[in-house]
Amino acid sequence: MQQYFGVKKDGKKLILNSEDFNHIKNVMRMKENDKVIVNYDGISYICSLNKDLLSCEIDSVFKQSNDKGSIIAYVPLLQEEKMSLVLQKGTELGVDEFVVVYFEHCKFKLPKKDYEKKLLRWNKIVKEASEQSYRVNKVIVREIIGIDQIVLNTNVNILCSLVKNNVKHISDILNTKNCNDTISLVFGPEGGFTNKEEEKLISKGFIRTSLGPNVLRTETVIMFIMSIVMYLKGSANDE
Amino acid sequence: MQQYFGVKKDGKKLILNSEDFNHIKNVMRMKENDKVIVNYDGISYICSLNKDLLSCEIDSVFKQSNDKGSIIAYVPLLQEEKMSLVLQKGTELGVDEFVVVYFEHCKFKLPKKDYEKKLLRWNKIVKEASEQSYRVNKVIVREIIGIDQIVLNTNVNILCSLVKNNVKHISDILNTKNCNDTISLVFGPEGGFTNKEEEKLISKGFIRTSLGPNVLRTETVIMFIMSIVMYLKGSANDE
Repeated sequence: MQQYFGVKKDGKKLILNSEDFNHIKNVMRMKENDKVIVNYDGISYICSLNKDLLSCEIDSVFKQSNDKGSIIAYVPLLQEEKMSLVLQKGTELGVDEFVVVYFEHCKFKLPKKDYEKKLLRWNKIVKEASEQSYRVNKVIVREIIGIDQIVLNTNVNILCSLVKNNVKHISDILNTKNCNDTISLVFGPEGGFTNKEEEKLISKGFIRTSLGPNVLRTETVIMFIMSIVMYLKGSANDE
Repeated sequence: MQQYFGVKKDGKKLILNSEDFNHIKNVMRMKENDKVIVNYDGISYICSLNKDLLSCEIDSVFKQSNDKGSIIAYVPLLQEEKMSLVLQKGTELGVDEFVVVYFEHCKFKLPKKDYEKKLLRWNKIVKEASEQSYRVNKVIVREIIGIDQIVLNTNVNILCSLVKNNVKHISDILNTKNCNDTISLVFGPEGGFTNKEEEKLISKGFIRTSLGPNVLRTETVIMFIMSIVMYLKGSANDE
């Protein structure tokens, strides 16, 4: 069944957005009373479309989010192809919020005037990935910021470093005890963080971690960490 | 330092292959006595190039593989872009051997006459990914086979299924106790295995597992599982 995100709930009625209305009408060619899944505020509903195709009536609850602890990923500004991959795979694997950060070693530059257009595009990518992977919660890509603007208010804060010595292995930081906490992850660009950047991030509360012997590309690291979080949540919830 | 794979060892001399010779001579423009890392039989050596640029002398051991238990991934035949992603990321994350399998739901068809050309291309992808991620062991892509030709001789055998009911969660099968065993993983195509295929694979010794609530794409599943194996190996070796 096709899945959308609601923008407003009014009693047993859910309102869809105009872009989805277009998809429903012109791509899916759906009609009044056709069934759709609509996510709203952490709950998935099975609904019947109204005649206007822009709203629908709730028939029943399909599933409720049992996600505990949201996950914020601070990702470096990357060239478009890698960025899409990171956003798509990160969403499939459970990131709730992406914040794009300009680091010193970011090779890809983006003029300020293009920020808004890019953010729209990136949010479209995560929206589609959310729908395809049946995520109940809406995933968002937030503004492009500098390192100084990062403000942490999560419980577990992980800095994925290229440094190999005197660094805790990821399994010493992330485990079944804290995987349902709120988690922030910061990923460096190709070439890594500068020393100054690492120091700043650590002073903000990030804990430096190593990912093991293999050297992973920027876009692989995020999939690696998110897979571990998903695995640990599975283990923790079984216990 | 540039990294290559040796094809033969003769005392303290390592022989390189002709393609790498080309890279050394024409791309890197290296000269006699320039240093390279050469992997041979699970050991990384720091070497000095000989004048012929096709062989080198071992100076010292750089690192020794402490990989325990090899990992075989049976992957469905996918269209080129997804195939490259699976091979590249799988290699970064620790797969030792890929076997490409034709499943009934594989949408992408490949005429037999193109097998050899494709295998060469795929092996080039994993070779480059091995070198970039500093893998000590050589990774290979084996022939394209049908499901009946799969013969298991590994300790842990995991079938990644779309079926959600009465299936063990991945964390019930894969844990710190068995992550250093030899592992076989079989991944289905988009649309999953047919019932008959699942039955056949189970009768061969695969254990069906579920990956949790999120719906992952074919190419994401392999990254997910390999990330977990890497994480568990890290935890197990710390214990």
